[in-house]
Amino acid sequence: MTVGATGLPDFEPGTVWLVGAGPGDPGLLTRLAVHALANADAVVYDALISDAILDFAGPQATRTYAGKRGGKPWPKQPAITERIIALARQGNRVLRLKGGDPFVFGRGGEEALALTRAEIAFRIVPGVTAGIGGHGYAGIPATHRDCNSAVLFLTGHDATGETPQAIDWEAAARIPVIVMYMALKHLEDIATRLIAAVRAGDEPVALVENATLPNQRVVTTTLASAAADAAAHNVSPPAIVTVGPVVDLRSVLQGVMLEQRPTADFGAVSQRRVGT
Amino acid sequence: MTVGATGLPDFEPGTVWLVGAGPGDPGLLTRLAVHALANADAVVYDALISDAILDFAGPQATRTYAGKRGGKPWPKQPAITERIIALARQGNRVLRLKGGDPFVFGRGGEEALALTRAEIAFRIVPGVTAGIGGHGYAGIPATHRDCNSAVLFLTGHDATGETPQAIDWEAAARIPVIVMYMALKHLEDIATRLIAAVRAGDEPVALVENATLPNQRVVTTTLASAAADAAAHNVSPPAIVTVGPVVDLRSVLQGVMLEQRPTADFGAVSQRRVGT
Repeated sequence: MTVGATGLPDFEPGTVWLVGAGPGDPGLLTRLAVHALANADAVVYDALISDAILDFAGPQATRTYAGKRGGKPWPKQPAITERIIALARQGNRVLRLKGGDPFVFGRGGEEALALTRAEIAFRIVPGVTAGIGGHGYAGIPATHRDCNSAVLFLTGHDATGETPQAIDWEAAARIPVIVMYMALKHLEDIATRLIAAVRAGDEPVALVENATLPNQRVVTTTLASAAADAAAHNVSPPAIVTVGPVVDLRSVLQGVMLEQRPTADFGAVSQRRVGT
Repeated sequence: MTVGATGLPDFEPGTVWLVGAGPGDPGLLTRLAVHALANADAVVYDALISDAILDFAGPQATRTYAGKRGGKPWPKQPAITERIIALARQGNRVLRLKGGDPFVFGRGGEEALALTRAEIAFRIVPGVTAGIGGHGYAGIPATHRDCNSAVLFLTGHDATGETPQAIDWEAAARIPVIVMYMALKHLEDIATRLIAAVRAGDEPVALVENATLPNQRVVTTTLASAAADAAAHNVSPPAIVTVGPVVDLRSVLQGVMLEQRPTADFGAVSQRRVGT
């Protein structure tokens, strides 16, 4: 690869970079992600990519939305990959920008396989995944020496939209900390399965909505009450759900931990501590 | 918090930022990590932080090594936290820089608790964890729709240096993809436990040494042969070990995927494909 004065590889025309943008805070963009945005000719981005992140793109870049939020139609996955391949074949530097990490419940593997079949050279740029970074902002470590030597990441719905049948819920229940993506819809079903296995109903649970964004909201509850509390507080996607003893660290840390969220308008506000 | 023209929060004197530097490639530093390095008065860094990353620190910053590699003595954890607290009380902007993410097997939770007890305001800056980003560079997705709806991250040794007794290895074995940190030492023991539970001896395994660094090396093997192959190829820490069907995607992707590693000297070399 050719590398410039920054030590970062050149974004070659006709190639695709599959880039993770992190959980939302533009401060969590990697140097490679910023570099890709600045140099891309075409940006194909997912629903969770905000304008604050897209504003790092250069004026030359075309922007193509490939998400399902905001009332716009949701392109099918084959249509997205066909579009990316066509843009690359036209000689564009194509940035495929995804929330979190492209290889963590992000369908990056499918897109990488499609690019491989089409023989379009591509690069993977990992990002901070919401299940780790989002919980970090909420004062919840994914692992903590006194709590867990293992952490399980799972998705709460599968391609059919149902609770994933492929997950061995009895085995999952025996892992001390479980971080769940896209789990709000089936939260009652999942909690029931975990309790039916080995988990206590009063196991601590955190629901982190809009993790790392200015409107981040955290609801702490228990496994037995999680689905009801999610409904009562109108917790909406995107949200991450964590089950396990690490959740209790939040109440200890939050009195001293600095406000993690970026301000919406980037205006100067007084130094705050995490309150809610 | 006060924020500047960059939209990033000011690094206030007397505070500590617990920052993940990612798996090694300086291109995977976040904007917040670069900002913290540029503004820190004191950087206290772990073993896996390279000079290429420390070079982002300003000339004003003192640098304190808190790792166990390189023949230097390993400070005990209480000594590290005491040093960080003392530096903050002197009014320094203290950057505690860790490899990967501070909350993933990084003892960030312990340090955050110590800062809380000392009432030193701190900020968590998540980073790309090696178990996700390092495998991404090796062409191995942590999740892939056809392979797994769940992925388990675990540490291969506990505080005593032994195979973690707290891990339910029978349950762990039933998760389709297992990503292991610091697992080389007890790899034979771990593989034996996983096979004794439910895993096949010919299950694909990847050993990724020095993930994302110029000297990254990948050995693909099987669960039954992993420990012997690690020894035969002299695989050394830091290394990440992944078990599961996602490992097989590497051989498919690597013919078309661009060389992910930064060059050691940042010199211009020809565009390469991933070969080894």
